[in-house]
Amino acid sequence: MNSRSGFSITPAHIAGLVVGEGCFYTESRPDEKYTLGWRIRPAFCMEMRADDIGALECVREQLGCGHIYHLDFGRYKGYADRSWHPHAKYRVTRLVDLYGKVVPYFRRHQLFGRKATAFGLFAEIVEGLYQRAHRTEQGLEEMRRLAQLLADHNVRGAVGKP
Amino acid sequence: MNSRSGFSITPAHIAGLVVGEGCFYTESRPDEKYTLGWRIRPAFCMEMRADDIGALECVREQLGCGHIYHLDFGRYKGYADRSWHPHAKYRVTRLVDLYGKVVPYFRRHQLFGRKATAFGLFAEIVEGLYQRAHRTEQGLEEMRRLAQLLADHNVRGAVGKP
Repeated sequence: MNSRSGFSITPAHIAGLVVGEGCFYTESRPDEKYTLGWRIRPAFCMEMRADDIGALECVREQLGCGHIYHLDFGRYKGYADRSWHPHAKYRVTRLVDLYGKVVPYFRRHQLFGRKATAFGLFAEIVEGLYQRAHRTEQGLEEMRRLAQLLADHNVRGAVGKP
Repeated sequence: MNSRSGFSITPAHIAGLVVGEGCFYTESRPDEKYTLGWRIRPAFCMEMRADDIGALECVREQLGCGHIYHLDFGRYKGYADRSWHPHAKYRVTRLVDLYGKVVPYFRRHQLFGRKATAFGLFAEIVEGLYQRAHRTEQGLEEMRRLAQLLADHNVRGAVGKP
Protein backbone atom coordinates (compact mmCIF):
# COMPACT_ATOMS: atom_id res chain seq x y z
CA MET A 1 0.00 0.00 0.00
CA ASN A 2 1.41 3.36 -1.02
CA SER A 3 4.47 1.45 -2.12
CA ARG A 4 5.18 3.93 -4.90
CA SER A 5 6.18 6.50 -2.32
CA GLY A 6 8.25 4.05 -0.30
CA PHE A 7 5.82 4.40 2.57
CA SER A 8 5.16 1.33 4.64
CA ILE A 9 2.74 0.62 7.43
CA THR A 10 4.44 0.15 10.79
CA PRO A 11 3.25 -1.48 14.01
CA ALA A 12 2.66 2.02 15.44
CA HIS A 13 0.22 2.74 12.59
CA ILE A 14 -1.60 -0.48 13.40
CA ALA A 15 -1.66 0.35 17.12
CA GLY A 16 -3.08 3.82 16.40
CA LEU A 17 -5.74 2.37 14.12
CA VAL A 18 -6.69 -0.21 16.76
CA VAL A 19 -7.00 2.54 19.40
CA GLY A 20 -9.64 4.05 17.13
CA GLU A 21 -11.40 1.06 15.60
CA GLY A 22 -10.33 -2.16 17.31
CA CYS A 23 -12.46 -4.08 19.79
CA PHE A 24 -11.32 -6.58 22.39
CA TYR A 25 -14.24 -8.47 23.87
CA THR A 26 -15.33 -11.78 25.35
CA GLU A 27 -18.51 -13.72 25.08
CA SER A 28 -19.26 -15.08 28.58
CA ARG A 29 -22.42 -17.04 29.14
CA PRO A 30 -23.92 -20.29 30.43
CA ASP A 31 -23.45 -23.27 28.13
CA GLU A 32 -24.28 -26.79 29.23
CA LYS A 33 -21.92 -28.26 26.67
CA TYR A 34 -18.95 -27.01 28.71
CA THR A 35 -17.72 -29.05 31.71
CA LEU A 36 -18.41 -26.31 34.24
CA GLY A 37 -21.56 -25.12 32.46
CA TRP A 38 -20.09 -21.83 31.23
CA ARG A 39 -18.28 -20.73 28.11
CA ILE A 40 -15.91 -17.81 27.70
CA ARG A 41 -14.79 -16.94 24.19
CA PRO A 42 -12.53 -14.00 23.53
CA ALA A 43 -12.28 -12.24 20.17
CA PHE A 44 -10.46 -9.32 18.64
CA CYS A 45 -12.23 -7.51 15.82
CA MET A 46 -12.24 -4.34 13.80
CA GLU A 47 -15.03 -3.09 11.59
CA MET A 48 -14.70 -0.48 8.85
CA ARG A 49 -16.51 0.59 5.73
CA ALA A 50 -16.09 -2.08 3.07
CA ASP A 51 -14.38 0.40 0.74
CA ASP A 52 -11.63 0.71 3.34
CA ILE A 53 -10.98 -3.01 3.43
CA GLY A 54 -7.36 -2.26 2.52
CA ALA A 55 -6.78 -0.99 6.06
CA LEU A 56 -8.21 -4.21 7.50
CA GLU A 57 -5.95 -6.21 5.20
CA CYS A 58 -2.95 -4.30 6.58
CA VAL A 59 -3.94 -5.33 10.10
CA ARG A 60 -4.43 -8.96 9.15
CA GLU A 61 -1.08 -8.99 7.39
CA GLN A 62 0.69 -7.49 10.42
CA LEU A 63 -0.94 -9.86 12.90
CA GLY A 64 -0.59 -12.89 10.65
CA CYS A 65 -3.96 -14.39 11.56
CA GLY A 66 -7.72 -13.86 11.46
CA HIS A 67 -10.32 -13.46 8.73
CA ILE A 68 -12.02 -10.58 6.93
CA TYR A 69 -15.62 -10.87 5.85
CA HIS A 70 -18.29 -8.64 4.39
CA LEU A 71 -21.21 -7.79 6.62
CA ASP A 72 -24.62 -8.21 5.09
CA PHE A 73 -26.46 -10.13 7.75
CA GLY A 74 -27.85 -9.62 11.23
CA ARG A 75 -28.35 -5.93 11.88
CA TYR A 76 -26.67 -5.19 8.53
CA LYS A 77 -29.14 -7.20 6.48
CA GLY A 78 -30.37 -5.08 3.60
CA TYR A 79 -28.02 -2.22 4.49
CA ALA A 80 -28.44 -0.63 1.06
CA ASP A 81 -32.20 -0.23 1.63
CA ARG A 82 -31.45 1.55 4.89
CA SER A 83 -28.95 3.92 3.24
CA TRP A 84 -26.08 2.27 5.09
CA HIS A 85 -22.66 1.78 3.65
CA PRO A 86 -21.53 -1.80 3.29
CA HIS A 87 -19.12 -2.72 6.08
CA ALA A 88 -16.39 -5.31 6.45
CA LYS A 89 -15.02 -6.90 9.59
CA TYR A 90 -11.69 -8.37 10.55
CA ARG A 91 -11.89 -10.91 13.34
CA VAL A 92 -9.61 -13.25 15.27
CA THR A 93 -11.29 -15.88 17.43
CA ARG A 94 -8.86 -18.85 17.49
CA LEU A 95 -7.39 -18.99 20.97
CA VAL A 96 -4.03 -20.14 19.68
CA ASP A 97 -3.84 -17.06 17.43
CA LEU A 98 -5.01 -14.68 20.15
CA TYR A 99 -2.47 -16.15 22.57
CA GLY A 100 0.42 -16.58 20.15
CA LYS A 101 -0.03 -13.57 17.85
CA VAL A 102 -2.50 -10.87 18.87
CA VAL A 103 -1.59 -10.57 22.55
CA PRO A 104 2.20 -10.63 22.00
CA TYR A 105 1.83 -8.08 19.16
CA PHE A 106 0.09 -5.50 21.34
CA ARG A 107 2.41 -6.19 24.24
CA ARG A 108 5.30 -5.26 21.96
CA HIS A 109 3.46 -2.40 20.25
CA GLN A 110 1.56 -0.58 22.94
CA LEU A 111 -1.91 0.81 22.69
CA PHE A 112 -3.01 3.96 24.51
CA GLY A 113 -6.16 5.47 25.97
CA ARG A 114 -9.14 3.33 26.94
CA LYS A 115 -8.18 0.65 24.44
CA ALA A 116 -4.98 -0.04 26.40
CA THR A 117 -7.06 -0.86 29.50
CA ALA A 118 -9.39 -3.10 27.49
CA PHE A 119 -6.38 -4.89 26.02
CA GLY A 120 -4.84 -5.47 29.48
CA LEU A 121 -8.00 -7.25 30.67
CA PHE A 122 -8.32 -9.13 27.39
CA ALA A 123 -4.72 -10.36 27.54
CA GLU A 124 -5.24 -11.72 31.06
CA ILE A 125 -8.34 -13.60 29.90
CA VAL A 126 -6.63 -15.04 26.81
CA GLU A 127 -3.59 -16.14 28.79
CA GLY A 128 -5.78 -17.64 31.52
CA LEU A 129 -7.86 -19.59 29.01
CA TYR A 130 -4.79 -20.79 27.15
CA GLN A 131 -3.36 -22.07 30.43
CA ARG A 132 -6.73 -23.72 31.11
CA ALA A 133 -7.36 -21.71 34.26
CA HIS A 134 -11.09 -21.96 33.57
CA ARG A 135 -11.11 -25.72 34.07
CA THR A 136 -11.38 -25.24 37.85
CA GLU A 137 -14.26 -23.56 39.65
CA GLN A 138 -11.92 -20.95 41.11
CA GLY A 139 -10.20 -20.26 37.80
CA LEU A 140 -13.50 -20.00 35.96
CA GLU A 141 -14.74 -17.56 38.58
CA GLU A 142 -11.69 -15.36 37.95
CA MET A 143 -12.11 -15.56 34.16
CA ARG A 144 -15.78 -14.60 34.51
CA ARG A 145 -14.83 -11.67 36.74
CA LEU A 146 -12.31 -10.40 34.18
CA ALA A 147 -14.78 -10.90 31.32
CA GLN A 148 -17.36 -8.86 33.24
CA LEU A 149 -14.82 -6.10 33.89
CA LEU A 150 -13.97 -6.01 30.18
CA ALA A 151 -17.65 -5.88 29.19
CA ASP A 152 -18.27 -3.07 31.70
CA HIS A 153 -15.25 -1.20 30.39
CA ASN A 154 -16.38 -1.55 26.77
CA VAL A 155 -19.95 -0.51 27.50
CA ARG A 156 -19.81 1.90 30.37
CA GLY A 157 -16.41 3.51 30.27
CA ALA A 158 -13.05 3.41 31.95
CA VAL A 159 -12.45 1.01 34.82
CA GLY A 160 -9.35 0.59 36.91
CA LYS A 161 -6.95 -2.24 36.29
CA PRO A 162 -8.19 -5.11 38.50
CA MET B 1 0.26 9.03 28.82
CA ASN B 2 1.65 5.64 29.77
CA SER B 3 4.75 7.50 30.85
CA ARG B 4 5.47 4.98 33.61
CA SER B 5 6.38 2.39 31.02
CA GLY B 6 8.49 4.81 28.98
CA PHE B 7 6.01 4.51 26.12
CA SER B 8 5.40 7.60 24.06
CA ILE B 9 2.96 8.33 21.30
CA THR B 10 4.59 8.77 17.91
CA PRO B 11 3.36 10.41 14.71
CA ALA B 12 2.69 6.94 13.30
CA HIS B 13 0.29 6.25 16.20
CA ILE B 14 -1.48 9.51 15.42
CA ALA B 15 -1.64 8.68 11.70
CA GLY B 16 -3.10 5.25 12.46
CA LEU B 17 -5.69 6.75 14.77
CA VAL B 18 -6.64 9.35 12.15
CA VAL B 19 -7.07 6.60 9.52
CA GLY B 20 -9.67 5.14 11.85
CA GLU B 21 -11.35 8.16 13.39
CA GLY B 22 -10.26 11.37 11.67
CA CYS B 23 -12.40 13.33 9.24
CA PHE B 24 -11.25 15.81 6.60
CA TYR B 25 -14.17 17.76 5.18
CA THR B 26 -15.22 21.09 3.73
CA GLU B 27 -18.36 23.10 4.07
CA SER B 28 -19.16 24.46 0.58
CA ARG B 29 -22.31 26.50 0.09
CA PRO B 30 -23.76 29.76 -1.18
CA ASP B 31 -23.18 32.74 1.12
CA GLU B 32 -23.97 36.28 0.02
CA LYS B 33 -21.53 37.71 2.56
CA TYR B 34 -18.63 36.41 0.45
CA THR B 35 -17.41 38.40 -2.56
CA LEU B 36 -18.21 35.68 -5.08
CA GLY B 37 -21.33 34.56 -3.25
CA TRP B 38 -19.92 31.25 -2.05
CA ARG B 39 -18.07 30.09 1.03
CA ILE B 40 -15.74 27.14 1.39
CA ARG B 41 -14.57 26.24 4.87
CA PRO B 42 -12.34 23.25 5.49
CA ALA B 43 -12.06 21.48 8.84
CA PHE B 44 -10.29 18.52 10.35
CA CYS B 45 -12.02 16.75 13.20
CA MET B 46 -12.06 13.59 15.22
CA GLU B 47 -14.82 12.39 17.50
CA MET B 48 -14.51 9.77 20.21
CA ARG B 49 -16.27 8.73 23.37
CA ALA B 50 -15.76 11.38 26.02
CA ASP B 51 -14.05 8.89 28.32
CA ASP B 52 -11.36 8.51 25.66
CA ILE B 53 -10.65 12.22 25.57
CA GLY B 54 -7.03 11.41 26.41
CA ALA B 55 -6.54 10.12 22.86
CA LEU B 56 -7.92 13.37 21.44
CA GLU B 57 -5.57 15.32 23.70
CA CYS B 58 -2.64 13.36 22.27
CA VAL B 59 -3.68 14.40 18.76
CA ARG B 60 -4.07 18.06 19.72
CA GLU B 61 -0.70 18.00 21.42
CA GLN B 62 0.99 16.47 18.36
CA LEU B 63 -0.64 18.88 15.91
CA GLY B 64 -0.19 21.90 18.17
CA CYS B 65 -3.55 23.46 17.31
CA GLY B 66 -7.30 23.00 17.48
CA HIS B 67 -9.87 22.64 20.24
CA ILE B 68 -11.59 19.83 22.07
CA TYR B 69 -15.15 20.18 23.22
CA HIS B 70 -17.84 18.00 24.74
CA LEU B 71 -20.82 17.21 22.56
CA ASP B 72 -24.17 17.71 24.16
CA PHE B 73 -26.03 19.69 21.57
CA GLY B 74 -27.53 19.21 18.12
CA ARG B 75 -28.11 15.53 17.47
CA TYR B 76 -26.37 14.75 20.76
CA LYS B 77 -28.74 16.81 22.88
CA GLY B 78 -29.97 14.73 25.80
CA TYR B 79 -27.71 11.81 24.82
CA ALA B 80 -28.08 10.20 28.26
CA ASP B 81 -31.86 9.88 27.77
CA ARG B 82 -31.19 8.11 24.48
CA SER B 83 -28.73 5.68 26.08
CA TRP B 84 -25.86 7.27 24.17
CA HIS B 85 -22.40 7.68 25.54
CA PRO B 86 -21.20 11.24 25.90
CA HIS B 87 -18.83 12.11 23.06
CA ALA B 88 -16.05 14.63 22.65
CA LYS B 89 -14.71 16.20 19.48
CA TYR B 90 -11.36 17.60 18.46
CA ARG B 91 -11.58 20.15 15.67
CA VAL B 92 -9.29 22.44 13.71
CA THR B 93 -10.95 25.10 11.58
CA ARG B 94 -8.48 28.01 11.48
CA LEU B 95 -7.06 28.13 7.96
CA VAL B 96 -3.65 29.22 9.18
CA ASP B 97 -3.49 26.14 11.43
CA LEU B 98 -4.75 23.78 8.74
CA TYR B 99 -2.22 25.20 6.27
CA GLY B 100 0.71 25.58 8.64
CA LYS B 101 0.25 22.58 10.94
CA VAL B 102 -2.29 19.92 9.97
CA VAL B 103 -1.45 19.60 6.26
CA PRO B 104 2.34 19.58 6.76
CA TYR B 105 1.98 17.05 9.61
CA PHE B 106 0.16 14.51 7.45
CA ARG B 107 2.42 15.15 4.51
CA ARG B 108 5.35 14.17 6.75
CA HIS B 109 3.49 11.34 8.47
CA GLN B 110 1.50 9.57 5.83
CA LEU B 111 -2.00 8.23 6.16
CA PHE B 112 -3.19 5.12 4.36
CA GLY B 113 -6.41 3.65 2.95
CA ARG B 114 -9.37 5.86 2.03
CA LYS B 115 -8.29 8.53 4.51
CA ALA B 116 -5.13 9.15 2.49
CA THR B 117 -7.25 10.01 -0.57
CA ALA B 118 -9.49 12.31 1.48
CA PHE B 119 -6.43 14.04 2.89
CA GLY B 120 -4.95 14.57 -0.60
CA LEU B 121 -8.08 16.43 -1.74
CA PHE B 122 -8.31 18.31 1.55
CA ALA B 123 -4.69 19.47 1.33
CA GLU B 124 -5.27 20.83 -2.18
CA ILE B 125 -8.29 22.78 -0.96
CA VAL B 126 -6.49 24.17 2.10
CA GLU B 127 -3.48 25.22 0.04
CA GLY B 128 -5.70 26.78 -2.63
CA LEU B 129 -7.68 28.76 -0.08
CA TYR B 130 -4.55 29.89 1.72
CA GLN B 131 -3.15 31.16 -1.57
CA ARG B 132 -6.51 32.87 -2.19
CA ALA B 133 -7.24 30.86 -5.32
CA HIS B 134 -10.96 31.20 -4.56
CA ARG B 135 -10.89 34.97 -5.07
CA THR B 136 -11.25 34.50 -8.82
CA GLU B 137 -14.20 32.87 -10.58
CA GLN B 138 -11.95 30.22 -12.09
CA GLY B 139 -10.17 29.51 -8.81
CA LEU B 140 -13.45 29.30 -6.91
CA GLU B 141 -14.77 26.85 -9.49
CA GLU B 142 -11.76 24.62 -8.94
CA MET B 143 -12.11 24.81 -5.16
CA ARG B 144 -15.79 23.92 -5.44
CA ARG B 145 -14.95 20.98 -7.68
CA LEU B 146 -12.39 19.67 -5.17
CA ALA B 147 -14.81 20.21 -2.26
CA GLN B 148 -17.46 18.20 -4.12
CA LEU B 149 -14.98 15.41 -4.83
CA LEU B 150 -14.07 15.30 -1.13
CA ALA B 151 -17.73 15.24 -0.08
CA ASP B 152 -18.45 12.43 -2.57
CA HIS B 153 -15.45 10.51 -1.31
CA ASN B 154 -16.51 10.88 2.32
CA VAL B 155 -20.09 9.93 1.67
CA ARG B 156 -20.05 7.51 -1.22
CA GLY B 157 -16.69 5.85 -1.21
CA ALA B 158 -13.36 5.87 -2.93
CA VAL B 159 -12.73 8.25 -5.81
CA GLY B 160 -9.65 8.57 -7.96
CA LYS B 161 -7.20 11.36 -7.40
CA PRO B 162 -8.46 14.24 -9.57
